[in-house]
Amino acid sequence: MNHFGVKFCVTTFGESHGGAIGCIVDGVPAGLEIDEKYIQNETDKRKPGTTKFATQRKESDKVRILSGVFNGVSTGAPIALVIFNENQKSGDYENIKSLFRPSHADFTYFKKYGIRDYRGGGRSSARETAARVAAGAIAKILLEKFGIEIKSGIFAVAGIEAKNLDFEYAKTSEIFALDKTVEKAQKEAVLKAKEDGDSVGGCVFVKISNAPIGLGEPLYNKLDGALAGALMGINGVKAVEIGEGVNASRLRGSQNNDQMDKNGFMSNHAGGILGGISTGEDMDLKIYFKPTPSIFLEQQTQNEQNESAKFNLKGRHDPCIAIRGSIVANAMASLVVADMLLLNTTCTIENLKKIYKQERK
Amino acid sequence: MNHFGVKFCVTTFGESHGGAIGCIVDGVPAGLEIDEKYIQNETDKRKPGTTKFATQRKESDKVRILSGVFNGVSTGAPIALVIFNENQKSGDYENIKSLFRPSHADFTYFKKYGIRDYRGGGRSSARETAARVAAGAIAKILLEKFGIEIKSGIFAVAGIEAKNLDFEYAKTSEIFALDKTVEKAQKEAVLKAKEDGDSVGGCVFVKISNAPIGLGEPLYNKLDGALAGALMGINGVKAVEIGEGVNASRLRGSQNNDQMDKNGFMSNHAGGILGGISTGEDMDLKIYFKPTPSIFLEQQTQNEQNESAKFNLKGRHDPCIAIRGSIVANAMASLVVADMLLLNTTCTIENLKKIYKQERK
Amino acid sequence: MNHFGVKFCVTTFGESHGGAIGCIVDGVPAGLEIDEKYIQNETDKRKPGTTKFATQRKESDKVRILSGVFNGVSTGAPIALVIFNENQKSGDYENIKSLFRPSHADFTYFKKYGIRDYRGGGRSSARETAARVAAGAIAKILLEKFGIEIKSGIFAVAGIEAKNLDFEYAKTSEIFALDKTVEKAQKEAVLKAKEDGDSVGGCVFVKISNAPIGLGEPLYNKLDGALAGALMGINGVKAVEIGEGVNASRLRGSQNNDQMDKNGFMSNHAGGILGGISTGEDMDLKIYFKPTPSIFLEQQTQNEQNESAKFNLKGRHDPCIAIRGSIVANAMASLVVADMLLLNTTCTIENLKKIYKQERK
Amino acid sequence: MNHFGVKFCVTTFGESHGGAIGCIVDGVPAGLEIDEKYIQNETDKRKPGTTKFATQRKESDKVRILSGVFNGVSTGAPIALVIFNENQKSGDYENIKSLFRPSHADFTYFKKYGIRDYRGGGRSSARETAARVAAGAIAKILLEKFGIEIKSGIFAVAGIEAKNLDFEYAKTSEIFALDKTVEKAQKEAVLKAKEDGDSVGGCVFVKISNAPIGLGEPLYNKLDGALAGALMGINGVKAVEIGEGVNASRLRGSQNNDQMDKNGFMSNHAGGILGGISTGEDMDLKIYFKPTPSIFLEQQTQNEQNESAKFNLKGRHDPCIAIRGSIVANAMASLVVADMLLLNTTCTIENLKKIYKQERK
Repeated sequence: MNHFGVKFCVTTFGESHGGAIGCIVDGVPAGLEIDEKYIQNETDKRKPGTTKFATQRKESDKVRILSGVFNGVSTGAPIALVIFNENQKSGDYENIKSLFRPSHADFTYFKKYGIRDYRGGGRSSARETAARVAAGAIAKILLEKFGIEIKSGIFAVAGIEAKNLDFEYAKTSEIFALDKTVEKAQKEAVLKAKEDGDSVGGCVFVKISNAPIGLGEPLYNKLDGALAGALMGINGVKAVEIGEGVNASRLRGSQNNDQMDKNGFMSNHAGGILGGISTGEDMDLKIYFKPTPSIFLEQQTQNEQNESAKFNLKGRHDPCIAIRGSIVANAMASLVVADMLLLNTTCTIENLKKIYKQERK
Repeated sequence: MNHFGVKFCVTTFGESHGGAIGCIVDGVPAGLEIDEKYIQNETDKRKPGTTKFATQRKESDKVRILSGVFNGVSTGAPIALVIFNENQKSGDYENIKSLFRPSHADFTYFKKYGIRDYRGGGRSSARETAARVAAGAIAKILLEKFGIEIKSGIFAVAGIEAKNLDFEYAKTSEIFALDKTVEKAQKEAVLKAKEDGDSVGGCVFVKISNAPIGLGEPLYNKLDGALAGALMGINGVKAVEIGEGVNASRLRGSQNNDQMDKNGFMSNHAGGILGGISTGEDMDLKIYFKPTPSIFLEQQTQNEQNESAKFNLKGRHDPCIAIRGSIVANAMASLVVADMLLLNTTCTIENLKKIYKQERK
Repeated sequence: MNHFGVKFCVTTFGESHGGAIGCIVDGVPAGLEIDEKYIQNETDKRKPGTTKFATQRKESDKVRILSGVFNGVSTGAPIALVIFNENQKSGDYENIKSLFRPSHADFTYFKKYGIRDYRGGGRSSARETAARVAAGAIAKILLEKFGIEIKSGIFAVAGIEAKNLDFEYAKTSEIFALDKTVEKAQKEAVLKAKEDGDSVGGCVFVKISNAPIGLGEPLYNKLDGALAGALMGINGVKAVEIGEGVNASRLRGSQNNDQMDKNGFMSNHAGGILGGISTGEDMDLKIYFKPTPSIFLEQQTQNEQNESAKFNLKGRHDPCIAIRGSIVANAMASLVVADMLLLNTTCTIENLKKIYKQERK
Repeated sequence: MNHFGVKFCVTTFGESHGGAIGCIVDGVPAGLEIDEKYIQNETDKRKPGTTKFATQRKESDKVRILSGVFNGVSTGAPIALVIFNENQKSGDYENIKSLFRPSHADFTYFKKYGIRDYRGGGRSSARETAARVAAGAIAKILLEKFGIEIKSGIFAVAGIEAKNLDFEYAKTSEIFALDKTVEKAQKEAVLKAKEDGDSVGGCVFVKISNAPIGLGEPLYNKLDGALAGALMGINGVKAVEIGEGVNASRLRGSQNNDQMDKNGFMSNHAGGILGGISTGEDMDLKIYFKPTPSIFLEQQTQNEQNESAKFNLKGRHDPCIAIRGSIVANAMASLVVADMLLLNTTCTIENLKKIYKQERK
């Protein structure tokens, strides 16, 4: 399977050290204004080298649209986006050519494929996510047109949790922190780890607002299943929660049920999804990232001949992948919701009658 | 999309009050001995009415194989399994015909489809999962042939957590408890809630052992993404963890990385999956279930005309869906791993050479 | 891959001598009136044993709806249809247990799967098509609602071709003949072959009328590609033509082009499809069936041990599979068009605006 | 749906006048030597401007590999190929901006998407096929490794048919003619039509040799169905035949059946496919192309406001699209067979045992 989505499909290609990375987004309805600057901005959010809280690698990430857009409007044909690779120092990786970096995908890729592109993680590298973010930007343009918002930010770093959620603030924060009152402590945790040659984990919060009721295709393409699959599939993610999440397992039904009155839902423990379908309430998702495996402390590992070896990392790496990961999580959630928006059009005959006349010639 | 899986495909059909439920399992390699008793046993584990910790509804769940098996062996054709519905009391649901039961799928299904089969949850009911468990049994037969084991049990109930994991003990426990020392407290929590007309949540632990290295198809069909999607898609699941899970987000890289020596991995925080591919170590998954929405306390809700209404449940319901849910989680994990086992055969030319000769005529 | 279609999905199961055959139709929009009698009638058209021009096997083909329909209306859930097998004489096949019947699928199934259900063709038998016809009936109900008609009939038998196309007449003809003036000769050709213990081939004409412009999803799900794939996939089909077909390859552009004026197309050599998308004109398809492989003359073959053997058929067989094949072709074309009708709803932002409001809360 | 194939997947992007065209080929097993020159050569076969029998447009079609190949060997990651567009004269199309060229896809694309890229056919142009041919080249590299050959050539032009099939000769012929004895007449027909400002149709023959027995996944991904779908989906194709094709419908069973003896098949009317599965015999396919719609005679058409208009073509066009179409047909057949080769690996437990050990730890 080479793509993500059923109607709003995304296929990506590229590695960190190949010629380029990119994606093809298919299923975009014709007639949508495609703002190249918007796509570039979204992609740039994910870019490293901008703050001391992320890796200092410079990547220019200039997005080019190769097809599917004519006079600034989608034609209905697949939209291909390409980002050419610059500034990849293959030299940084020479010394670890035959070693498996601990908790990276080196070992598993080598065992599965019998061959490994050791330059910076190849297909498994974070760089590939730039293509997903660019694709997610197109999804967000589509969703925006119908008032649907996908917001995100950092909920926690090194276990230091936000007490309030301010998504507007997060847009301005260097670490996308959702709570200004704990931001300083979160930043310090990142810098301390960096100083120690180590890394920290974090938690991303994604909120989907204003989605229509009815998104999700039970049973095998339920909205919660699709979101969890898309988010857990992001490199480094080890847990996903929806709504009340883990805590729901500790509550009683009388506490967790969302009762209703004539105005609608009286609470939202469900996190906006019931029976795999959106309820119209906010969808609240928490995505937990492990700490970056790339640390500068000496570690023990194996080499390709199954011998013990010492591993010392070189290069420039994120001390907290959750930070830039929040942009990727936002993009993946956008792709899922866009797909569901398109899939939902045929759920009733009523809908079809709005599209097709019923005359006979 | 009407199915689950890419090569090992499952499509289910049926509702709790339709004529029957069933599934079609396609992609089963020919030559596999299909033990009907084994399928029946697995399906029976999920059956209600056997203990006071689950609903007292009687369902006989007799599985019939309609195709794809000849002389007890799979032929390579799709295997259809059917379970005929008995003992559904439509009468139990008459009074709530036009009400939305809180935290059930009634509201969302009605809004999406404009029509709702109010008898017991229709397509969204737990009964449909019997078909999935039957399909999962076939997956387990396949996996067993290659030494792969999928074990499960109850990790927590109402927040009371196991301290040790004894999967053999769980098979004998009435509530599939993994830890005998907390089982009594867990059972009491269930009965207390039941007495109160309420319900409790729980957490299921699934352990996949002995899988070969290399399962998972990056990037859009990664093993962790597929597992998370399959598990979060189970009705009532609100969080999924792999390996270190939520806790990974609180650790440093130096603590969370799995170092290696010549004998292999020295730890397994990754939970058996790196880069979306199995490492050969145990895969540890935690699946968090909300408490059953069906409780006997009076609740407020809406009816189909958007008016406030009181809701009083009748019928027979699980006080803790996680218990029988553990069997469904085990089945879904089995289906994912079986699919990945088949998908992985073509990852290298070396593999293809084992299947195809290279002669020219 | 276990199904047909992307949005309007059909999965079938069953063999001629298993417990039952059936199908699951997923993606049917909710709110469609499902007329069980109509489904039964369509399925009965394909039934053998009704005339001397088809096999004398008696099969009752009673269709049961197991799910997805409530109070005679589709709920949006998958619709499962089952037909229980009666009257399969396994005894008829005992003598050929280890022989490969010439031009049947016995040889290829045995080589691929290493195991073969020799009773009457197993999964490859014509009987499985009853399930497809039942599924096609649901597709036709959906299409009918939007004025789209799928008509069919026999164009040729043993090379005797119709000169006119009367689809109304074909409904009444014992061999679905489209041209009354050649029907007698066509019937005689069938009976003569039958008398000789032999069989004849034929050609089916399918006409799709009144489809909206725009059906088809370039490039990988074009309408002509989808139709050709569905029709060539019917057992026994060896050629498919659209519009001018083979003859187009003999014409000049000036002869084959369909010019237009203000009223629309001035001709229809294209057969209603241009660029893989429907033009609004009639879609004319010709489907060529080989003669039934099952003949009563002695033939040479191989057995499972690669030894030469003589083969003498027993049982009751169609002398011209094209006749009942026309019903299957009609059903497959209906399934494709129904799928395309659903897929086409999201091709423009304009369409989406008819389904979704654009307000922000 | 944005791709072709289930395991060996191809997604293309690009238009004749966008920035570039290209494709992503996913599912290529790791360890395959990818010869860039070979891919370039195959793609060049399709290139226009090389003979007077094809359009005089110059396109350089330089293929660049952007990912999935490391040190000349596939890594198992998706392989992205890009061809940058040069030499598209947008000016050639200005005059027909709002007219629908007869028998092109202009009309249907405009009606479906409400917007049309009028520059040379946009997504529906023949140029996009360069990407498919490049992808097909990778498929052929894979097939070659297992001795499977896909050969093609021109069988007929303007109804002038080959009497013998010489695939080696076809490689050297300017029009890929399979029969030297009729090549001159075929060439003259093309030039005569070109002189008249008109075009001619043709027929391509594709022969697949040496495929293993067993390719094809009944029932919904049968080999004949997949081939027919892939070939009929090529722009301009109006009929597809397999084996005896149309003529099978005129034969008796005694004439069309392929009997067997201890050495195998005694004939091959089936064209190498029975029950949707390859028999090991040559697969013979005939693909019928309509004449190029782009002719220089004045034609009547409509414009976007539904008014009658005269249409006069400018630009440079193929007088016989079947010629270069034969390369595309070869590529599509290669993609199908490569996909089936990968899909077939899991049809038996025996096969799985060759890949996976059965030990338990």
